[in-house]
Amino acid sequence: MSKALIRRFNTFYSSFLQQLESIMPLIPSDKLRLFSERLLVAAGAPAEDAKHVADSLVMGNLTGHDSHGINMLPAYIKRIKIGVIKPGAKVELARDAPAYAMINGNWNFGQIVATYVMEVAIKKASSSGLALVCAFNCNHAGRLGEYCLTAANSGLIAMMMVNSPPSVVPWGGAQRRLGTNPICIAIPRKGEKPILLDMATSIVANGKVSLKVGTGERIPEGWILDPNGKPSTKPEDFDRGGAMLPFGTYKGYGLGLMVDILCGAFTGSGGCNRIPKDGINGVFALVMKPDLFVSGDEFLSSVDEIARHVLNTPLQKGFSEILLPGQPEERAMEKRSREGIFVHDVLLTKLKNAAAEYGVTPP
Amino acid sequence: MSKALIRRFNTFYSSFLQQLESIMPLIPSDKLRLFSERLLVAAGAPAEDAKHVADSLVMGNLTGHDSHGINMLPAYIKRIKIGVIKPGAKVELARDAPAYAMINGNWNFGQIVATYVMEVAIKKASSSGLALVCAFNCNHAGRLGEYCLTAANSGLIAMMMVNSPPSVVPWGGAQRRLGTNPICIAIPRKGEKPILLDMATSIVANGKVSLKVGTGERIPEGWILDPNGKPSTKPEDFDRGGAMLPFGTYKGYGLGLMVDILCGAFTGSGGCNRIPKDGINGVFALVMKPDLFVSGDEFLSSVDEIARHVLNTPLQKGFSEILLPGQPEERAMEKRSREGIFVHDVLLTKLKNAAAEYGVTPP
Repeated sequence: MSKALIRRFNTFYSSFLQQLESIMPLIPSDKLRLFSERLLVAAGAPAEDAKHVADSLVMGNLTGHDSHGINMLPAYIKRIKIGVIKPGAKVELARDAPAYAMINGNWNFGQIVATYVMEVAIKKASSSGLALVCAFNCNHAGRLGEYCLTAANSGLIAMMMVNSPPSVVPWGGAQRRLGTNPICIAIPRKGEKPILLDMATSIVANGKVSLKVGTGERIPEGWILDPNGKPSTKPEDFDRGGAMLPFGTYKGYGLGLMVDILCGAFTGSGGCNRIPKDGINGVFALVMKPDLFVSGDEFLSSVDEIARHVLNTPLQKGFSEILLPGQPEERAMEKRSREGIFVHDVLLTKLKNAAAEYGVTPP
Repeated sequence: MSKALIRRFNTFYSSFLQQLESIMPLIPSDKLRLFSERLLVAAGAPAEDAKHVADSLVMGNLTGHDSHGINMLPAYIKRIKIGVIKPGAKVELARDAPAYAMINGNWNFGQIVATYVMEVAIKKASSSGLALVCAFNCNHAGRLGEYCLTAANSGLIAMMMVNSPPSVVPWGGAQRRLGTNPICIAIPRKGEKPILLDMATSIVANGKVSLKVGTGERIPEGWILDPNGKPSTKPEDFDRGGAMLPFGTYKGYGLGLMVDILCGAFTGSGGCNRIPKDGINGVFALVMKPDLFVSGDEFLSSVDEIARHVLNTPLQKGFSEILLPGQPEERAMEKRSREGIFVHDVLLTKLKNAAAEYGVTPP
């Protein structure tokens, strides 16, 4: 078969699989939440923490970020087994000053650590005007949007970044060096959901590739390189030691490198040169009161005017609307809360296996 | 002529013009600096400030950012004439707290204001650990790298952003809304130049397009839209009311929007909805001591290891090396300091006209 023909077939097959999703049974989010919670408890997590992590993961799915959802459960279970995640470990303040603090996560779940980071940052920012709170010894914290939203829902501006294990090439490189190193910024609004930018500095999040492994689907050109550093559309090539590309070419690489330095070197968590274990995050969070320089009302009105001005832009051909960061997630949440969450057979099998191992009713 | 033929001709012509540059006379940076200084003094700037602004602009050219160089002189002169730039205006602290401050630039040159912003931020960060310093009533501040480098050369970490007048579409939009809204981050190193990321959130800086106007050169596809929102490669289409695209598609748009909110709404400078005059910047600068959470030595070693690990990545086909952010600028500076700076005839004519008007010896 010619290469062009293979490519056409792959495109057709991918779109066929995507269409299939729409007629496949969807699982209600409550059911997935309860299952995740029980599985985590069975794997050794304290009840309250299991509920917290389950909520976080299912919220990843609800907001459309299946890469940060229940797909992480098998990895978390494995990490608990080998002692990388230490359920119940005490999360503690390691350094404390009026406008900054350092949290030692002691290898508890990343979600528990990151929630505490944001709690401390909100408290400090409320009294000092702004606060920088970082964390080390922190496992995979999941979707940063969750924590920044907490701040924005309290009327504060939040910026958060984490570095993560190598999966992305530096611009021009053929091998993994940097993590997907996401940047998240949340802006409070009056009577509207916060504006929420939550983006990997890689072309997509790791999970967006990993979730396709074994499904027969192809990924778009320009996402990954194979283990030899050549462009590939096979998601399996990423797991075999390939690498992802940064978003926005050399600028995305530059941002990703800065996230590694700020979250790795600055926090003492370790940069890409020495991230010791799978799935760890160095955490950097900055929270600011929006009324440091103008009144809170003036800030909120100004944000509103900016938002409206941007949303009212005439459209480019081929686009049907302009969205604010965070709106795609809100829409996914509305739809998935109502309709349920699609779980691919490949993942469902893994979850059922874990359920069987721990004697938990499968989803 | 067929479209393909026109395109081929344009490509050839652009490359011909670029080759021409290499055999055209280069002007020594000192000569340009002295000329800029004299012109600014003749236009009404105090001697010390004229020297400061001239140094900044020529440093833009030296580092390879001709978009932030002496090409700005005609605009600055015009802005002085119409009262947008107010040379000699008092730059003052409008709000002051241990970890943050607000500067009222009173419409002095942006370079004078931004230098003061960084001065205050460095002082405050040195005593409080970190400092957020913003500015309003600030004209075009030029190359942010200059100010962040000052902090990094004092051993501090700096992050700086400015919002700027509309020239970039939101993702999916056909008209200008956001500015080029750059983000700059500088990281100090031991015995090496700081790592310096200094990037517009647009696909390129404004000046990179404007500098091509009238030269007959084309710009790459994917940079701009014409006034009807259609892709164009004619730099003139941008000046006629076209718009630039964000870098990295929707992610670059998201970052650009956040810069507008942080530098416009948060500082009270005004966001894209109400930037009142040409060439103004809302300024946001965060400076941190690198030893808040680990020792200064540990931080510097860690940055070194990250840098080396990234630079040692095997190369992708088609690349000859991997660079750290800031290295292209260092190389340009080394070369241009030695060889001089290329000034296109179109710009040279403008500078000569200004020189004649103010009775200054042309460069």
